[in-house]
Amino acid sequence: MPDNPLLPMIAQVFDQMPFNRLLGLKVTRFAEDSVEVCFNWSEQLIGNPLQQILHGGVISSVLDVAGGIMAVSSALGRLTDVAPEQLFARLGKMSTIDIRTDYLRPGRGELFIATARVIRSGNKVAVCRMELHNEQGKHIALGTGTYLVG
Amino acid sequence: MPDNPLLPMIAQVFDQMPFNRLLGLKVTRFAEDSVEVCFNWSEQLIGNPLQQILHGGVISSVLDVAGGIMAVSSALGRLTDVAPEQLFARLGKMSTIDIRTDYLRPGRGELFIATARVIRSGNKVAVCRMELHNEQGKHIALGTGTYLVG
Amino acid sequence: MPDNPLLPMIAQVFDQMPFNRLLGLKVTRFAEDSVEVCFNWSEQLIGNPLQQILHGGVISSVLDVAGGIMAVSSALGRLTDVAPEQLFARLGKMSTIDIRTDYLRPGRGELFIATARVIRSGNKVAVCRMELHNEQGKHIALGTGTYLVG
Amino acid sequence: MPDNPLLPMIAQVFDQMPFNRLLGLKVTRFAEDSVEVCFNWSEQLIGNPLQQILHGGVISSVLDVAGGIMAVSSALGRLTDVAPEQLFARLGKMSTIDIRTDYLRPGRGELFIATARVIRSGNKVAVCRMELHNEQGKHIALGTGTYLVG
Repeated sequence: MPDNPLLPMIAQVFDQMPFNRLLGLKVTRFAEDSVEVCFNWSEQLIGNPLQQILHGGVISSVLDVAGGIMAVSSALGRLTDVAPEQLFARLGKMSTIDIRTDYLRPGRGELFIATARVIRSGNKVAVCRMELHNEQGKHIALGTGTYLVG
Repeated sequence: MPDNPLLPMIAQVFDQMPFNRLLGLKVTRFAEDSVEVCFNWSEQLIGNPLQQILHGGVISSVLDVAGGIMAVSSALGRLTDVAPEQLFARLGKMSTIDIRTDYLRPGRGELFIATARVIRSGNKVAVCRMELHNEQGKHIALGTGTYLVG
Repeated sequence: MPDNPLLPMIAQVFDQMPFNRLLGLKVTRFAEDSVEVCFNWSEQLIGNPLQQILHGGVISSVLDVAGGIMAVSSALGRLTDVAPEQLFARLGKMSTIDIRTDYLRPGRGELFIATARVIRSGNKVAVCRMELHNEQGKHIALGTGTYLVG
Repeated sequence: MPDNPLLPMIAQVFDQMPFNRLLGLKVTRFAEDSVEVCFNWSEQLIGNPLQQILHGGVISSVLDVAGGIMAVSSALGRLTDVAPEQLFARLGKMSTIDIRTDYLRPGRGELFIATARVIRSGNKVAVCRMELHNEQGKHIALGTGTYLVG
């Protein structure tokens, strides 16, 4: 886990969001420059039952979460000494402005890993690129998200 | 409900998708040229618990569903006599290629209504515009989805 | 023309941008809540010469311009008394964050009309929806742009 | 230059598109899996004259071109023996469905290099990722394009 004490706090905030818990998302790795969010296959995440693949909305959701964590991190990560209340106050003002998801392959697998990195980091706006792979390394989806961070 | 007997069948397919049921989505109106998909506020759909607002992934999910129904409808709606097996076979080959969601206002409300209409209808690809409002008519989000339909 | 004296100044700034002049763009109507940017068909704007249609980049360009004007207007339009230097200073800090263009029909026609309206207006970020039609009312393209305005 | 004799033909088609010539675009490298499209700084490509930077529409245009070349290549590249007439007929049916551009840094520089690669290659639809850098390696913009190829 990272040295910056803020990162575990940010990860915890995301892990505890009700909808992230419903999806079974877990922040499994989180450093200054990248994050990994995982979830397991589950019947209730199926879109098309004939094909037994993930619903597109599940994929967009986890990409948004991974991007959001990095956007928050890019805005707050420079700080090393913030009280939890201040962190929560800042987090409460951050939000996704827009997101694009490109679905590349059917969402099949046992474990899904979303990763994100920041490609534009500013005082007001951050842009992130996200990817979703399964446990075999199949590239399932791609995302681009723009976040309000300040 | 519409005259075309395919529309109720399509609506049923979407209503029964496991993830749509998890979200509580219901196709509440469906005609040749428009669709309405609704869901109620629920604690488990919360993103940021400090703000008590819908998770962005919930919003993207329902917009994708509303757009997908119209895309399917634009491709199949001309048919009036299709056996269920054929319908399912065709549906199994349709998928979202990409989607963009613009988050306009915080997702607050008791009832949320997603609507969609087709803006490009082709043999291979359909493009839809989607909107999400709450029960007070607040415009919460906007979506644009590209779908593979043939 | 609008009452607000800033609008003609903003229109002039856009009309004089070198690339807008290369494309032949003209702000033909501009009010608080909408704008119209027009250009004529020209051989040099062709993409595919076999089809004799507008290059997709021309379409994206004019949609970006129409959206940008409305984004600027949403941020500055409330001001009624700004010195030109201040206006230019503020304009210099505004920029497009991201834009999506959906191509709906081939770009054929004699006169093309881009329109835009603001769908999210904030202190930092504005989101606009844009459309391109030809002189016969054919809907050629659709755009969604996110702009940094503060 | 590549072994596949189709690639130079495809490059030539793009080099000769009227709007690409207006922008000064040149296909400078083209292989099975990647392409490079370059253009020089020019006064007439300026958007904001105060900032002396490229117009966003120029950036979207070149990203669309680079992505389009790779999309065409992914659909036709497997063929090794096609008559020019057939190639042109196939090309005439291909088009951009939608494109997203993310502007990361101001478009400053002397030489601009757009690159693209295919991230989804299908019979009907191809998706490409594009990037724009200047001669110093500054990353100026990012694009994602969906193309109809069959």
